[in-house]
Amino acid sequence: MADVNQIRAGETALPADPAAKPDAGVVFIGRIRSPWARGNCPRNISKARAEHPDAWIELDPKWAPALAGLVVGQPILLLYWMNHARRDLLTQTPTHVDVARGTFSLRSPNRPNPVAASTVRITSLDGNRIGIDAIDCFDDTPLIDIKPWLETIDIPPA
Amino acid sequence: MADVNQIRAGETALPADPAAKPDAGVVFIGRIRSPWARGNCPRNISKARAEHPDAWIELDPKWAPALAGLVVGQPILLLYWMNHARRDLLTQTPTHVDVARGTFSLRSPNRPNPVAASTVRITSLDGNRIGIDAIDCFDDTPLIDIKPWLETIDIPPA
Repeated sequence: MADVNQIRAGETALPADPAAKPDAGVVFIGRIRSPWARGNCPRNISKARAEHPDAWIELDPKWAPALAGLVVGQPILLLYWMNHARRDLLTQTPTHVDVARGTFSLRSPNRPNPVAASTVRITSLDGNRIGIDAIDCFDDTPLIDIKPWLETIDIPPA
Repeated sequence: MADVNQIRAGETALPADPAAKPDAGVVFIGRIRSPWARGNCPRNISKARAEHPDAWIELDPKWAPALAGLVVGQPILLLYWMNHARRDLLTQTPTHVDVARGTFSLRSPNRPNPVAASTVRITSLDGNRIGIDAIDCFDDTPLIDIKPWLETIDIPPA
């Protein structure tokens, strides 16, 4: 992971991959299906949404009872595991940024825990298949959580 | 974890703790400090905020360079690990809800991956200490991510 050959100008990394010694374990509860792969994946969810992708969640059937109470049209917060990301970068230079910035000031997938968070709307519900209005990750990205989006928690205080 | 004695009326659980076989590992990047413990912890961040708690993040110093670019006043999305939660519940009955609901329709800490998400504002920045306006978790809860909150990603589409 900390291969200096992969580091761009201004980027810094920890001397070792922090993921070598995990503190806790995550389980994958399903997969996100999207039209995206390396090369055609939109840079963010706004750009993804503009392309009206066919996107959905294939939830592991054993978790299907946990969907009870969710409804079509509802906004949800998805947490998913960016399994192609590197985890050792302290500062990084995304292609749209001129100078290196701290990992925690960016939404880059490269971070100590490569958990992405996006807010989407449910467009359909059929057993363990959950249609969503858009997503910005590669097809087959592991899903780790679905939460109801709530204005009182998910909008910053004034 | 799947102790039937702990299950309330209407609740359902997987037959085994899903966390026994993790698919990936998370690393703790710091701790959230708060006045809360079992018994006095507010039910959600709105209630926590109303009590004007003294709350801050103690980031592991090795990650401090990754804060570059964050500023006081900025809204951030925190992801933290609810290490006292159970991970096997499919449906559950929080104290404020009458009938059991699916885990994914609730913000309960009890979920397959006990990652909580809250949006807060940075009130101070001093080395690896980040003041925040409020939080709703126990003192010493492990932190796993800090992201800039962005309207284009974190507000549902119309």
